Amino acid sequence: MRVSELVAVSGVPLATVKYYLREGLLMPGAASSATQAEYGEQHVRRLALVKALAGVGLPLGRIRTIVGLVDHPADTVFETIGRALAALPPYPAEGEKRSGDYPRARAVLERLGQVYEPAYPVVAQLERALAAAEDVGIPMTDERLDAYARHVRGIAEIDLDLMPTDSAESAIEYAVLGTAIYEPVLAALRRLAHQDIGAARFAGRTFDDFETPDRQDQP
Amino acid sequence: MRVSELVAVSGVPLATVKYYLREGLLMPGAASSATQAEYGEQHVRRLALVKALAGVGLPLGRIRTIVGLVDHPADTVFETIGRALAALPPYPAEGEKRSGDYPRARAVLERLGQVYEPAYPVVAQLERALAAAEDVGIPMTDERLDAYARHVRGIAEIDLDLMPTDSAESAIEYAVLGTAIYEPVLAALRRLAHQDIGAARFAGRTFDDFETPDRQDQP
Repeated sequence: MRVSELVAVSGVPLATVKYYLREGLLMPGAASSATQAEYGEQHVRRLALVKALAGVGLPLGRIRTIVGLVDHPADTVFETIGRALAALPPYPAEGEKRSGDYPRARAVLERLGQVYEPAYPVVAQLERALAAAEDVGIPMTDERLDAYARHVRGIAEIDLDLMPTDSAESAIEYAVLGTAIYEPVLAALRRLAHQDIGAARFAGRTFDDFETPDRQDQP
Repeated sequence: MRVSELVAVSGVPLATVKYYLREGLLMPGAASSATQAEYGEQHVRRLALVKALAGVGLPLGRIRTIVGLVDHPADTVFETIGRALAALPPYPAEGEKRSGDYPRARAVLERLGQVYEPAYPVVAQLERALAAAEDVGIPMTDERLDAYARHVRGIAEIDLDLMPTDSAESAIEYAVLGTAIYEPVLAALRRLAHQDIGAARFAGRTFDDFETPDRQDQP
C-alpha cells in the first residue's frame, strides 16, 4: 500500500508517519519509484505499537528501545522482556542517586523469597513506595505484605497465562502494554472493592458506634 | 506548646504553619496573650495529616475537603469515607464531559455484582482505564476480569481489616492515605511478581522455542 493508505489504515497522521520514519521508529517501505514506497502489514503493526506506547506516555527514546528489542531480541525471552519492561515509567526523579542498596525493598523481597537485584528499576520504585508509606505513618507490615503478595502473585499468574506466544513482537507488546495499561484498571477495581465491602461492613453505622467493628459480631 | 515548638515537633516550617492557619487547614491555637497562642496534640496531629495529604499530591482544596470531614463527619462512616476518597486523584481531565453513563465500567460492575453508581468519580476512572486497554488492543476479557476481581477483593479485605477504628480522624486518614500510598506498592509488587514467575517459566528459553509454553509440559 502507499503511504496515504498506511495513514488511513493506521489512523496515524501523515506528518507523524514521516516523523517516525525519520526517527527510525518505523522501518522504511520498499522503494517502488524515485518518490514512492510500498508499505505492508509490518508497517501497520509497527505503527499500532508505537502509537500504543506513545499513548501510555512513553517518551520517544524509550519507544525506540522497545522497537529495537522487537527487531533484535536479546538472547532469551526473559532478558528481552525484562529490558523492555525497564523502559516503562515511573522513571527516577532527576538527580535521584542510585544508592545501589534499597533496604526496604530488600527486606520485602527476602521475606517473599524473590530475587533482590538492585539494578532493576522496579526495585528502586518499590523502595520509594515503601518509604512514602513510612513517611505518612502507615508503614508496610508483614501482615499486609503477606496478604498483598499472595493476591498480587495471583494477578501476575493470570497476566503470564494470557501472554501471546506467537512472536517476539506479540510477547513484548503484551508485556509492556499489559503492565502499564492494567495498573489503572487494578487501582480502580481496588477502590470499588473498598466501597463494596465498606458498604456492607459499615451499613448505617456512625462514628459513635464505630469502635465495635461488625466483624466481632459475626461468627 | 508555642508555635516554635509546634514547628520543631511537626517538622513543618513556620511559614507553612502560618499559611495553613490562614487557609483554615490548621485550627487556631488558644490565645495565651495578645501575640502568642498555645498549641497542643490536636495541632501536631492535624499538621501530620495535612503534610501527608500534600505529600501524596493532593491540592489544597482537596485537603480542605478532607480536613472538613474529619471535623464534621457526614451522618455515617460510609458516607464520610466515601466523600473523603472522592477527593483523591486521578482527577478528570479539564473539560472532560461527565457523560452520566460509563458503559464499560457498568458491564464490569454488573458482572461482579457490585453497585454501578455513575456519580462516583472512581467509576469514570474505571471507564477511562478500560477504554485505554481497548485503544491499545488488549481489551479486558471476562477471564482476566474474574481473576483480577477475585484477588483485588482479597487485597481490599485486608485493607479494611486493618482500618483503625478509634476515631473518625484515624479512619479517614487511613482510608485516604492507605488508598493512595499502597497503589504504587502494589504496582511494584506486581512487576516484581511478573519477573519472578517469568524467570521460572521462561528460564533459558529463546523466542525460537517460545511457541511451546512450559505450561503444556506440566501436569
